Amino acid sequence: MSAHDSLDLVIRRADVVTASDRFRCDIGVRNGQIVALGHALPQGAREIDADGLLALPGGVDGHCHLDQPMPDGLRMADDFFTGTRAAVCGGTTTVIPFAAQEKGASLKAAVADYHRRAEGRAVIDYAFHLIVADPTPAVLADELPALIRKGYSSFKVYMTYDDLKLSDREMLSVLDVAKQNGALVMVHAENADCISWLTDKLVGEGRIAPRFHGLARPAAVEREATHRAITFAELVDVPILIVHVSGKEAIEQIRWAQGRGLQILAETCPQYLYLTADDMALPGDDGYEGAKCVCSPPPRDPENQAAVWRALTNGVFSVFSSDHAPFRYDDPQGKQPGGERPSFEHIPNGVPGIETRLPLLFDGVARGKLSLHQFVELTSWRPARLYGLYPRKGTIAIGADADIVLWDPNQRVQIRNSALHHAVDYTPYEGIEVTGWPVHCFSRGEMLVRDGQYQEPQAGRGQFLPAGAPMLG
Amino acid sequence: MSAHDSLDLVIRRADVVTASDRFRCDIGVRNGQIVALGHALPQGAREIDADGLLALPGGVDGHCHLDQPMPDGLRMADDFFTGTRAAVCGGTTTVIPFAAQEKGASLKAAVADYHRRAEGRAVIDYAFHLIVADPTPAVLADELPALIRKGYSSFKVYMTYDDLKLSDREMLSVLDVAKQNGALVMVHAENADCISWLTDKLVGEGRIAPRFHGLARPAAVEREATHRAITFAELVDVPILIVHVSGKEAIEQIRWAQGRGLQILAETCPQYLYLTADDMALPGDDGYEGAKCVCSPPPRDPENQAAVWRALTNGVFSVFSSDHAPFRYDDPQGKQPGGERPSFEHIPNGVPGIETRLPLLFDGVARGKLSLHQFVELTSWRPARLYGLYPRKGTIAIGADADIVLWDPNQRVQIRNSALHHAVDYTPYEGIEVTGWPVHCFSRGEMLVRDGQYQEPQAGRGQFLPAGAPMLG
Amino acid sequence: MSAHDSLDLVIRRADVVTASDRFRCDIGVRNGQIVALGHALPQGAREIDADGLLALPGGVDGHCHLDQPMPDGLRMADDFFTGTRAAVCGGTTTVIPFAAQEKGASLKAAVADYHRRAEGRAVIDYAFHLIVADPTPAVLADELPALIRKGYSSFKVYMTYDDLKLSDREMLSVLDVAKQNGALVMVHAENADCISWLTDKLVGEGRIAPRFHGLARPAAVEREATHRAITFAELVDVPILIVHVSGKEAIEQIRWAQGRGLQILAETCPQYLYLTADDMALPGDDGYEGAKCVCSPPPRDPENQAAVWRALTNGVFSVFSSDHAPFRYDDPQGKQPGGERPSFEHIPNGVPGIETRLPLLFDGVARGKLSLHQFVELTSWRPARLYGLYPRKGTIAIGADADIVLWDPNQRVQIRNSALHHAVDYTPYEGIEVTGWPVHCFSRGEMLVRDGQYQEPQAGRGQFLPAGAPMLG
Amino acid sequence: MSAHDSLDLVIRRADVVTASDRFRCDIGVRNGQIVALGHALPQGAREIDADGLLALPGGVDGHCHLDQPMPDGLRMADDFFTGTRAAVCGGTTTVIPFAAQEKGASLKAAVADYHRRAEGRAVIDYAFHLIVADPTPAVLADELPALIRKGYSSFKVYMTYDDLKLSDREMLSVLDVAKQNGALVMVHAENADCISWLTDKLVGEGRIAPRFHGLARPAAVEREATHRAITFAELVDVPILIVHVSGKEAIEQIRWAQGRGLQILAETCPQYLYLTADDMALPGDDGYEGAKCVCSPPPRDPENQAAVWRALTNGVFSVFSSDHAPFRYDDPQGKQPGGERPSFEHIPNGVPGIETRLPLLFDGVARGKLSLHQFVELTSWRPARLYGLYPRKGTIAIGADADIVLWDPNQRVQIRNSALHHAVDYTPYEGIEVTGWPVHCFSRGEMLVRDGQYQEPQAGRGQFLPAGAPMLG
Repeated sequence: MSAHDSLDLVIRRADVVTASDRFRCDIGVRNGQIVALGHALPQGAREIDADGLLALPGGVDGHCHLDQPMPDGLRMADDFFTGTRAAVCGGTTTVIPFAAQEKGASLKAAVADYHRRAEGRAVIDYAFHLIVADPTPAVLADELPALIRKGYSSFKVYMTYDDLKLSDREMLSVLDVAKQNGALVMVHAENADCISWLTDKLVGEGRIAPRFHGLARPAAVEREATHRAITFAELVDVPILIVHVSGKEAIEQIRWAQGRGLQILAETCPQYLYLTADDMALPGDDGYEGAKCVCSPPPRDPENQAAVWRALTNGVFSVFSSDHAPFRYDDPQGKQPGGERPSFEHIPNGVPGIETRLPLLFDGVARGKLSLHQFVELTSWRPARLYGLYPRKGTIAIGADADIVLWDPNQRVQIRNSALHHAVDYTPYEGIEVTGWPVHCFSRGEMLVRDGQYQEPQAGRGQFLPAGAPMLG
Repeated sequence: MSAHDSLDLVIRRADVVTASDRFRCDIGVRNGQIVALGHALPQGAREIDADGLLALPGGVDGHCHLDQPMPDGLRMADDFFTGTRAAVCGGTTTVIPFAAQEKGASLKAAVADYHRRAEGRAVIDYAFHLIVADPTPAVLADELPALIRKGYSSFKVYMTYDDLKLSDREMLSVLDVAKQNGALVMVHAENADCISWLTDKLVGEGRIAPRFHGLARPAAVEREATHRAITFAELVDVPILIVHVSGKEAIEQIRWAQGRGLQILAETCPQYLYLTADDMALPGDDGYEGAKCVCSPPPRDPENQAAVWRALTNGVFSVFSSDHAPFRYDDPQGKQPGGERPSFEHIPNGVPGIETRLPLLFDGVARGKLSLHQFVELTSWRPARLYGLYPRKGTIAIGADADIVLWDPNQRVQIRNSALHHAVDYTPYEGIEVTGWPVHCFSRGEMLVRDGQYQEPQAGRGQFLPAGAPMLG
Repeated sequence: MSAHDSLDLVIRRADVVTASDRFRCDIGVRNGQIVALGHALPQGAREIDADGLLALPGGVDGHCHLDQPMPDGLRMADDFFTGTRAAVCGGTTTVIPFAAQEKGASLKAAVADYHRRAEGRAVIDYAFHLIVADPTPAVLADELPALIRKGYSSFKVYMTYDDLKLSDREMLSVLDVAKQNGALVMVHAENADCISWLTDKLVGEGRIAPRFHGLARPAAVEREATHRAITFAELVDVPILIVHVSGKEAIEQIRWAQGRGLQILAETCPQYLYLTADDMALPGDDGYEGAKCVCSPPPRDPENQAAVWRALTNGVFSVFSSDHAPFRYDDPQGKQPGGERPSFEHIPNGVPGIETRLPLLFDGVARGKLSLHQFVELTSWRPARLYGLYPRKGTIAIGADADIVLWDPNQRVQIRNSALHHAVDYTPYEGIEVTGWPVHCFSRGEMLVRDGQYQEPQAGRGQFLPAGAPMLG
Repeated sequence: MSAHDSLDLVIRRADVVTASDRFRCDIGVRNGQIVALGHALPQGAREIDADGLLALPGGVDGHCHLDQPMPDGLRMADDFFTGTRAAVCGGTTTVIPFAAQEKGASLKAAVADYHRRAEGRAVIDYAFHLIVADPTPAVLADELPALIRKGYSSFKVYMTYDDLKLSDREMLSVLDVAKQNGALVMVHAENADCISWLTDKLVGEGRIAPRFHGLARPAAVEREATHRAITFAELVDVPILIVHVSGKEAIEQIRWAQGRGLQILAETCPQYLYLTADDMALPGDDGYEGAKCVCSPPPRDPENQAAVWRALTNGVFSVFSSDHAPFRYDDPQGKQPGGERPSFEHIPNGVPGIETRLPLLFDGVARGKLSLHQFVELTSWRPARLYGLYPRKGTIAIGADADIVLWDPNQRVQIRNSALHHAVDYTPYEGIEVTGWPVHCFSRGEMLVRDGQYQEPQAGRGQFLPAGAPMLG
């Protein structure tokens, strides 16, 4: 900047960390953007001393569910306000939840509805993934291409769940649209028929407690669908991203494909690093507390956890997301079993985690399992690039939005739901102690969190981010 | 910087590319360092308009041979002057050649000798790898640890070549020193006994032309040694870097190890992307021209070339180096066969390539085989980190040396030896046309190349860089 | 036998080869069974001198189609008479064709119908596989278990073809019945949706010639279904047999599963050793001759052929069958394209080969690609065991049926359709020269072929063989 | 046979099991050979009723050490008398111990010496493997080829042990002789340098108890040497057999090689099915009892045991041998530590097992882990073929030696050293209960064991078996 231009904010003595670099300097912000990096920058309207803290690009949560309409009377506890509030308190400054098509309805309707839910509520910026549940010829030929052009360049498809799953043929058609229009397809890879066959068998044997959820979705079921999705991507010749990979069997498939030169990307989530099948067997007062940890794919075992940690650093995983699924345990429309439906089949799948995602992974940095740069890459840089938000998001560089988290790498925090900001009444990570915590969080230069305290910014200040083309490599 | 501090150099409107980021701004340089990034920086003493050019971190050539004493009367054509001149003309601003211990001599003597060869000659900065050829107890207990502390934190060991090769036991001992002292070991992985057995067999059958060099060192010989080196690293629990990997068999071993969570790093070189075994069969006027392309491991075939390209983008390779080995073809102490020794056994191994390394890989960027960021990572950022030169080298960031290459991504150049700056009388890449070429090159803010023309800076301006600890991750 | 019992037949000086042994002796036969092995057996009512010939167990063709009702007006050229005549002329003394359920019809009806087709026609013994195309609850609960008990202990399921394919859920249910009742499931593994998507794409582009059949069913399509079928077998914990494996991608999956300890068996066929995709591009006079070689999965390329040969000897394949599919080329209800349906979609899949199966594989013995014992194992012993016909069939041992082929290992024969005994007007192997040919063939002690000449035995002499439980290991 | 020829022995109602077949008949023996198979054979001079018993080919122990001269004053407890007595009591009727060359001495001398040790002592037939420890030019050019021609067609080479190990170059030379002369090379695959480096480290840390033997030879050390040996076989293009494979890492390498079409054969032994590293930690009264289970490679853990069981049935292993190494625990020249040498380095490697080999594996048949045919193949048929003794040994067929074991598949026996017939004072399998035991054992028609009781045949009745060419496939 020239000397006569004023700076709105200067962050002094920042220990800046990006996906590849680390350097010490002042950060100058004007109009919500980073405009200067250097030593002894001119005085800003606002000044923060970051000495002793890391300055990280704000997290981009590439996989979370907020205020998503659900079938069967289910209800998500977090809307765009509570959800984004929790996100920023955990160091995340961008969220990408899902505008989900209903079977029989249009995608455009889902997008319009979802914008209504976000507007006036979100406190940080957001983009939308689409969920394509009904790829009619009209959707494939018109709606999807038009939406991609308008800034919805990623969509998720499901290989399981009756209300969402696509046939193999539909998968191929959707991938083809992605290829023709430059979008990225995210795949929930589990074999629906295997799950329903195993479920019926278990239920027929009276094995209905929450922990049987895991037996109904063994690793082979995920591995098979992963292999199948890879085959589709190979036939169509288009990249895909396998979401929420739970363990070594699926990892083996993905690594095999990557070794062949296919562009198969993958994501994992905190639950596969910190939970195991045993957590779904927690009894609780009502014999049902294991339901809190029911998600799909299910948590596996310590050997699989180790495989997931390993795959975070050897290139298998590109993205680390929360898959935040906010269902309350005390809610009959949530995790709580009704008297009529005590079986694991009826527990909504998913665990909350939008606020704890970054600290749980950062603890791995503290323990030497991954580097600071890998942390930034997995949680911010790569999702920003893949989902078309880079260079506005995902880095600290000239021209980027001033979405910056000042992180204390040494602070030890015991996770307590009572201290979290989501609207869910539990966290599956209750009591876990982590090293490292976000102290101050800025969104476009505005300080939303100071000293770990939410600053009550205006609800709705968050902006919709039209996504550009996916950036691979 | 504050407004009252003057800038020595401002590069305007740079399209900066680092290992992870790309942004457009001015770059301010003072005292050879980058001190400011931003828009509309104050006037500098010198100004360059980089509009239309990429600003890349100068290349770091992590594997090249300059003025290295050789056995058997062999002679390297390039000393530190011609070698570094060629390097910078090709966009490389840091070289790391080898101070090679002779059997029976000390490492310290090799280092002292090598410093004498570099001083007063080098035009760009340099660090030294060590070659450990005689790991006596004294070397292991004293010399090596002392040298590591003094800034020689990487060393190469050979599993072949009579004057250099270590026994398995010696390999383990050297790796153990690396582990105890925080150094990185580079491994030339080929099985010496297999090579000598195959060579004797070929020579016994009268098959002595240059192309039989390839048959004496088939892929299985490299694969075996790679597996063995990996085992040593596993037993000692220390990272290693396998140098000049030639094809899919060794790649398969490395990827297997990486998948198990071992820290096995790997390097490849231009010859494995552009040459094949057929090039060693080139007849030439004297029936011997194939000698120009003789190197070890030898070039393979197109299928292996494809595997090497693929492994540049899926994480197998960390580093892309030249392995510049400057032997003249017209020199009886070089590639040229003497009347007494026409057999391939006597051809010095290696090809020149210090100047062409970056353009040959960048052409892959132009053809969509890898991304700009992968290019920077492989050629500059990663070698700088692994060899302990980061953050001084390897990036464009506040505080880094102003080693910057302004690169024209669209310029088409046909490689001609007559246009190169090394002292070798041929290039194995003669006639290959590439897209992209370095236009202006700065070393610590000094412009050594302008518009592709070498600017005749003072010989000896290059500085020795004491290396810090290897940075992995 | 005791000295006073007479022998119906003595084969003298036989060089007997079984799946594991080779010994020289006389073979004594009474009532169609082998009752004595030894030197200088007493005189038989009939005597044959086998000196210079191998005595092999008669071939068991575990996969062939004879007189099978077809959809869409298609017509098989071979019924049980011409088909079994051709079989025995090629050294096969047992066939196991398919009783195919139609969707909406019962399995029992298919079996009854198929018995009617075989009776009075077959000249050698036969068993039936079932094809389960409509696994209704009644079929699963009653029909299948009852049929297994009655001697139909193997059934085939299809993952492609609209009139035959099962859903994943149906596959699991059928495998479960096999597990509960001790049957063996054979799987045609190709992904139906991928094929239809690729077919529509090719046809939409006007690419309809026979050779595009191969592009509509690339190796990845077979590999995916193979992986999926393996997963089903793993979940149900039951052995399966993947039929007609065409190349290295499916082989890789099978070997991976076998390495994990799963009981995944596999079959290949002559077409994957001798044909390639190029054969489907043969122009012929009508530009359509490639249709003769259209089968599913399609022939691949020489590299895949080599992989199939290799997998015959390292345990991947258990069975080598013909998959004889007798469609005439001159028949508008056969391979010949009608004017209305020139697209490859309408070519019936499959090639004839019941008579050439053994000589084509034996040629591999002559060329040193597999051993005599492996030949016997793949073509006779293993199918007899897997399909519940052992020890009556599949070996030369006391108590076994005297189904014996006296084979000249040195005879060179050029395959000509004019010399074959099926009712098809072509062979895809026309002109191929093989070493080794069956000279005399006995079925239960009756000589059906003498000196290569069919002896016109009574049609209908062949007996139905109720199958016992599969014998693995 | 003709009715007028008398039979020396008839085994009635035998349930004959060979590597591939099972049939019920009488077995007629004359002059030590099987001459008739059939029902109601004529009366023999001797008659045995085998009803209810299996008739198996006598075991061939392809890897055992008897009366082998040892370095360092070590002494083997079993000579050819006690060793072969124990063998036949365990159902083995052929042994193949090792004539071991000493460094500096000739192979011929070793063979001559070893014949002297066997003659007059052996009670069953025997062949010799050679151990090539000093492959001088004369040995390679003359001695080895001459010995191969004379019936010593297999030899073992060591990649570890100071007095035995070959260099890589020597390995290649020996393999080349095998290729040129049609012999089979057995390889002890462990990396000597790794072992010595790890040993020195452990000893330096005072970790000298028997259990540290296992830490000095981790699986990676065996895996590496296995990969290296495979590479040599690939370069020379000759089959090899990796002996005493201990677990999954080496298995993975072997399976990889087999999948590529290389002829890599492998052997395992009872210790890898029944012992683990924990057994080397047994304290005993003297804190040293773990020494009883010290062998190389060392036993691993239950997961590796499972991998070894699995590899017995999926084609990885061809041969199951004892590697009988008879050192007494109470012998200062045996396992017992002297006061001067308490370290694990000085414990002779190996465990006794010549008598328990077959029952320990048969128990796997009883438990459904492998089939009867696989049992015969691994323990008799395959070693007879690979080591050039087939068809005289390894099967029950016309013309074969009447080496027959009548086996009770249901007898339960608890293994007690007090009931064994070797000269060793312990068995590592003490107390293990197995199902199945040899009841009567015949060698060339002579009953050496009746009702489990050794019949005191004449010492020295065993004959030397000149071995023919290896039979693969």
